[in-house]
Amino acid sequence: MTYDPSNIFGKILRGELPAHKVYEDDTALVMMDIFPQSRGHTLIVPKAASRNLLDADPATLAAVIPLVQRVARAAKAVTGADGVRVAQFNEAPAGQTVFHLHFHVIPAYDGVPLGAHAGGKADDAELIALAKDIAAAL
Amino acid sequence: MTYDPSNIFGKILRGELPAHKVYEDDTALVMMDIFPQSRGHTLIVPKAASRNLLDADPATLAAVIPLVQRVARAAKAVTGADGVRVAQFNEAPAGQTVFHLHFHVIPAYDGVPLGAHAGGKADDAELIALAKDIAAAL
Repeated sequence: MTYDPSNIFGKILRGELPAHKVYEDDTALVMMDIFPQSRGHTLIVPKAASRNLLDADPATLAAVIPLVQRVARAAKAVTGADGVRVAQFNEAPAGQTVFHLHFHVIPAYDGVPLGAHAGGKADDAELIALAKDIAAAL
Repeated sequence: MTYDPSNIFGKILRGELPAHKVYEDDTALVMMDIFPQSRGHTLIVPKAASRNLLDADPATLAAVIPLVQRVARAAKAVTGADGVRVAQFNEAPAGQTVFHLHFHVIPAYDGVPLGAHAGGKADDAELIALAKDIAAAL
Protein backbone atom coordinates (compact mmCIF):
# COMPACT_ATOMS: atom_id res chain seq x y z
CA MET A 1 0.00 0.00 0.00
CA THR A 2 1.35 3.41 -0.94
CA TYR A 3 0.65 6.93 0.28
CA ASP A 4 -1.89 8.96 -1.69
CA PRO A 5 -1.45 12.71 -0.93
CA SER A 6 -5.05 13.49 -1.96
CA ASN A 7 -6.40 12.26 1.42
CA ILE A 8 -8.17 14.89 3.54
CA PHE A 9 -5.46 15.11 6.22
CA GLY A 10 -2.89 15.73 3.47
CA LYS A 11 -5.14 18.55 2.24
CA ILE A 12 -5.45 20.00 5.75
CA LEU A 13 -1.65 19.85 6.23
CA ARG A 14 -1.19 21.74 2.95
CA GLY A 15 -3.79 24.35 3.95
CA GLU A 16 -6.24 23.26 1.23
CA LEU A 17 -8.98 22.41 3.75
CA PRO A 18 -9.88 24.01 7.09
CA ALA A 19 -9.63 22.26 10.45
CA HIS A 20 -10.27 22.95 14.13
CA LYS A 21 -6.57 23.22 14.95
CA VAL A 22 -5.36 22.78 18.52
CA TYR A 23 -1.59 22.89 18.04
CA GLU A 24 1.02 22.74 15.31
CA ASP A 25 4.79 22.39 15.20
CA ASP A 26 7.35 21.10 12.69
CA THR A 27 6.45 17.48 13.50
CA ALA A 28 2.68 17.31 13.77
CA LEU A 29 -0.71 18.97 13.64
CA VAL A 30 -3.27 18.45 16.43
CA MET A 31 -6.94 19.03 15.65
CA MET A 32 -10.44 18.16 16.83
CA ASP A 33 -12.19 15.18 15.18
CA ILE A 34 -15.33 16.59 13.53
CA PHE A 35 -17.11 13.22 13.97
CA PRO A 36 -16.15 12.66 17.61
CA GLN A 37 -16.59 9.33 19.36
CA SER A 38 -16.89 11.33 22.59
CA ARG A 39 -16.59 14.95 23.73
CA GLY A 40 -12.96 16.03 23.35
CA HIS A 41 -11.98 13.50 20.65
CA THR A 42 -8.70 14.88 19.29
CA LEU A 43 -6.38 13.78 16.47
CA ILE A 44 -2.59 13.94 16.29
CA VAL A 45 -1.42 13.97 12.66
CA PRO A 46 2.33 13.69 11.97
CA LYS A 47 3.41 15.91 9.07
CA ALA A 48 5.68 13.29 7.52
CA ALA A 49 3.82 11.42 4.80
CA SER A 50 2.91 7.82 5.60
CA ARG A 51 -0.22 5.80 4.98
CA ASN A 52 -0.35 4.59 8.57
CA LEU A 53 1.88 3.17 11.32
CA LEU A 54 2.98 0.21 9.21
CA ASP A 55 4.97 2.30 6.71
CA ALA A 56 5.94 5.16 9.05
CA ASP A 57 9.51 6.19 9.83
CA PRO A 58 10.21 4.94 13.39
CA ALA A 59 11.84 8.31 14.12
CA THR A 60 8.54 10.03 13.30
CA LEU A 61 6.70 7.74 15.72
CA ALA A 62 9.25 8.39 18.48
CA ALA A 63 8.97 12.14 17.92
CA VAL A 64 5.19 12.26 17.98
CA ILE A 65 4.25 9.89 20.85
CA PRO A 66 5.22 12.38 23.60
CA LEU A 67 2.82 14.84 21.93
CA VAL A 68 0.10 12.17 21.98
CA GLN A 69 0.70 11.92 25.72
CA ARG A 70 0.45 15.69 26.19
CA VAL A 71 -2.80 15.79 24.21
CA ALA A 72 -4.25 12.86 26.20
CA ARG A 73 -3.51 14.64 29.48
CA ALA A 74 -4.87 17.97 28.23
CA ALA A 75 -8.05 16.51 26.70
CA LYS A 76 -8.77 14.59 29.91
CA ALA A 77 -8.17 17.66 32.06
CA VAL A 78 -10.28 20.00 29.93
CA THR A 79 -13.24 17.66 29.54
CA GLY A 80 -13.22 16.29 33.08
CA ALA A 81 -13.18 12.80 31.55
CA ASP A 82 -12.57 9.78 33.79
CA GLY A 83 -10.24 8.06 31.34
CA VAL A 84 -8.84 8.36 27.86
CA ARG A 85 -8.35 5.91 25.03
CA VAL A 86 -5.48 6.20 22.53
CA ALA A 87 -6.13 4.41 19.23
CA GLN A 88 -4.40 4.13 15.89
CA PHE A 89 -5.94 2.19 12.98
CA ASN A 90 -4.15 0.58 10.05
CA GLU A 91 -6.16 -0.25 6.93
CA ALA A 92 -9.93 -0.27 6.49
CA PRO A 93 -10.71 -3.56 8.32
CA ALA A 94 -9.12 -2.00 11.43
CA GLY A 95 -11.27 1.12 11.15
CA GLN A 96 -8.94 3.43 9.19
CA THR A 97 -10.90 5.87 7.03
CA VAL A 98 -8.26 8.53 6.23
CA PHE A 99 -5.04 7.11 4.83
CA HIS A 100 -2.53 9.44 6.44
CA LEU A 101 -1.04 8.29 9.77
CA HIS A 102 -2.92 9.65 12.79
CA PHE A 103 -3.51 8.89 16.46
CA HIS A 104 -6.90 9.25 18.15
CA VAL A 105 -7.21 10.58 21.70
CA ILE A 106 -10.74 9.72 22.90
CA PRO A 107 -11.88 10.83 26.37
CA ALA A 108 -13.93 8.24 28.26
CA TYR A 109 -16.62 9.05 30.81
CA ASP A 110 -17.94 6.95 33.68
CA GLY A 111 -21.17 5.24 32.71
CA VAL A 112 -21.00 6.24 29.04
CA PRO A 113 -20.09 3.34 26.71
CA LEU A 114 -17.34 4.26 24.25
CA GLY A 115 -18.81 4.86 20.82
CA ALA A 116 -22.18 5.84 22.29
CA HIS A 117 -21.87 9.25 20.64
CA ALA A 118 -20.29 8.05 17.40
CA GLY A 119 -21.76 8.93 14.03
CA GLY A 120 -22.77 12.55 14.30
CA LYS A 121 -20.94 15.66 13.19
CA ALA A 122 -19.99 17.87 16.12
CA ASP A 123 -21.17 21.43 16.61
CA ASP A 124 -18.55 23.85 15.25
CA ALA A 125 -18.87 26.25 18.18
CA GLU A 126 -18.23 23.42 20.65
CA LEU A 127 -15.17 22.25 18.69
CA ILE A 128 -13.78 25.80 18.57
CA ALA A 129 -14.14 26.10 22.34
CA LEU A 130 -12.60 22.67 22.98
CA ALA A 131 -9.67 23.36 20.63
CA LYS A 132 -8.93 26.60 22.49
CA ASP A 133 -9.15 24.98 25.92
CA ILE A 134 -7.04 21.93 24.99
CA ALA A 135 -4.41 24.20 23.40
CA ALA A 136 -4.23 26.19 26.62
CA ALA A 137 -3.83 22.99 28.68
CA LEU A 138 -1.05 21.47 26.54
CA MET B 1 -3.47 7.73 40.55
CA THR B 2 -0.33 5.88 41.58
CA TYR B 3 1.38 2.72 40.37
CA ASP B 4 0.62 -0.48 42.29
CA PRO B 5 3.33 -3.11 41.58
CA SER B 6 0.98 -5.98 42.49
CA ASN B 7 -0.73 -5.85 39.06
CA ILE B 8 -0.39 -8.98 36.90
CA PHE B 9 1.95 -7.41 34.34
CA GLY B 10 4.24 -6.32 37.16
CA LYS B 11 4.22 -9.93 38.37
CA ILE B 12 5.01 -11.22 34.86
CA LEU B 13 7.88 -8.71 34.50
CA ARG B 14 9.33 -9.93 37.81
CA GLY B 15 8.96 -13.59 36.78
CA GLU B 16 6.29 -14.29 39.40
CA LEU B 17 3.70 -15.31 36.78
CA PRO B 18 4.13 -17.10 33.43
CA ALA B 19 3.33 -15.54 30.05
CA HIS B 20 3.40 -16.45 26.38
CA LYS B 21 6.46 -14.32 25.68
CA VAL B 22 7.24 -13.17 22.14
CA TYR B 23 10.22 -10.90 22.74
CA GLU B 24 12.07 -9.18 25.56
CA ASP B 25 14.79 -6.54 25.79
CA ASP B 26 15.88 -3.97 28.37
CA THR B 27 12.95 -1.70 27.49
CA ALA B 28 9.92 -3.93 27.08
CA LEU B 29 8.32 -7.36 27.13
CA VAL B 30 6.10 -8.52 24.26
CA MET B 31 3.55 -11.28 24.93
CA MET B 32 0.34 -12.79 23.62
CA ASP B 33 -2.94 -11.58 25.16
CA ILE B 34 -4.57 -14.66 26.72
CA PHE B 35 -8.05 -13.15 26.20
CA PRO B 36 -7.53 -12.08 22.57
CA GLN B 37 -9.91 -9.75 20.76
CA SER B 38 -8.77 -11.44 17.55
CA ARG B 39 -6.23 -14.06 16.48
CA GLY B 40 -2.74 -12.64 16.99
CA HIS B 41 -3.65 -10.08 19.69
CA THR B 42 -0.28 -9.11 21.17
CA LEU B 43 0.74 -6.82 24.05
CA ILE B 44 3.79 -4.58 24.35
CA VAL B 45 4.60 -3.90 28.03
CA PRO B 46 7.32 -1.34 28.84
CA LYS B 47 9.45 -2.43 31.79
CA ALA B 48 9.51 1.02 33.40
CA ALA B 49 6.81 1.27 36.02
CA SER B 50 3.88 3.51 35.16
CA ARG B 51 0.16 3.11 35.65
CA ASN B 52 -0.59 4.01 32.03
CA LEU B 53 0.35 6.55 29.34
CA LEU B 54 -0.73 9.52 31.45
CA ASP B 55 2.05 9.10 34.05
CA ALA B 56 4.68 7.52 31.77
CA ASP B 57 8.14 8.97 31.13
CA PRO B 58 8.01 10.44 27.58
CA ALA B 59 11.41 8.84 26.93
CA THR B 60 9.90 5.41 27.66
CA LEU B 61 7.11 6.08 25.16
CA ALA B 62 9.59 7.20 22.50
CA ALA B 63 11.72 4.09 23.09
CA VAL B 64 8.84 1.63 22.89
CA ILE B 65 6.72 2.93 19.98
CA PRO B 66 9.13 1.62 17.29
CA LEU B 67 8.75 -1.82 18.91
CA VAL B 68 4.95 -1.44 18.74
CA GLN B 69 5.38 -0.82 15.01
CA ARG B 70 7.57 -3.93 14.59
CA VAL B 71 5.04 -6.07 16.47
CA ALA B 72 2.15 -4.67 14.39
CA ARG B 73 3.95 -5.55 11.17
CA ALA B 74 4.95 -9.01 12.41
CA ALA B 75 1.50 -9.90 13.81
CA LYS B 76 -0.16 -8.81 10.55
CA ALA B 77 2.30 -10.81 8.45
CA VAL B 78 2.06 -13.96 10.56
CA THR B 79 -1.73 -14.01 10.82
CA GLY B 80 -2.44 -12.88 7.27
CA ALA B 81 -4.66 -10.16 8.74
CA ASP B 82 -6.01 -7.40 6.50
CA GLY B 83 -5.35 -4.62 9.00
CA VAL B 84 -4.19 -4.02 12.54
CA ARG B 85 -5.44 -1.84 15.35
CA VAL B 86 -3.11 -0.29 17.94
CA ALA B 87 -4.85 0.66 21.19
CA GLN B 88 -3.79 1.93 24.59
CA PHE B 89 -6.28 2.44 27.43
CA ASN B 90 -6.01 4.79 30.38
CA GLU B 91 -8.21 4.14 33.44
CA ALA B 92 -11.17 1.79 33.74
CA PRO B 93 -13.77 3.88 31.84
CA ALA B 94 -11.44 3.69 28.80
CA GLY B 95 -11.17 -0.09 29.05
CA GLN B 96 -7.98 -0.45 31.11
CA THR B 97 -8.06 -3.62 33.24
CA VAL B 98 -4.37 -4.04 34.15
CA PHE B 99 -2.80 -0.93 35.65
CA HIS B 100 0.68 -1.14 34.15
CA LEU B 101 1.23 0.72 30.85
CA HIS B 102 0.72 -1.49 27.78
CA PHE B 103 -0.08 -1.22 24.10
CA HIS B 104 -2.45 -3.61 22.31
CA VAL B 105 -1.74 -4.80 18.76
CA ILE B 106 -4.97 -6.32 17.44
CA PRO B 107 -5.05 -7.86 13.95
CA ALA B 108 -8.21 -7.12 11.95
CA TYR B 109 -9.71 -9.42 9.33
CA ASP B 110 -11.95 -8.57 6.37
CA GLY B 111 -15.58 -9.27 7.23
CA VAL B 112 -14.93 -9.98 10.91
CA PRO B 113 -16.13 -7.18 13.24
CA LEU B 114 -13.50 -6.21 15.80
CA GLY B 115 -14.36 -7.66 19.17
CA ALA B 116 -16.34 -10.52 17.61
CA HIS B 117 -14.01 -13.01 19.30
CA ALA B 118 -13.63 -11.12 22.57
CA GLY B 119 -14.31 -12.72 25.90
CA GLY B 120 -12.86 -16.20 25.65
CA LYS B 121 -9.50 -17.47 26.87
CA ALA B 122 -7.29 -18.56 24.00
CA ASP B 123 -5.96 -22.07 23.52
CA ASP B 124 -2.45 -22.32 24.99
CA ALA B 125 -1.09 -24.37 22.07
CA GLU B 126 -2.27 -21.73 19.59
CA LEU B 127 -0.72 -18.92 21.65
CA ILE B 128 2.60 -20.80 21.87
CA ALA B 129 2.64 -21.22 18.07
CA LEU B 130 1.70 -17.57 17.46
CA ALA B 131 4.33 -16.31 19.91
CA LYS B 132 7.01 -18.34 18.12
CA ASP B 133 5.94 -17.19 14.66
CA ILE B 134 5.63 -13.50 15.62
CA ALA B 135 9.03 -13.64 17.32
CA ALA B 136 10.54 -15.03 14.12
CA ALA B 137 8.90 -12.26 12.05
CA LEU B 138 10.03 -9.36 14.26
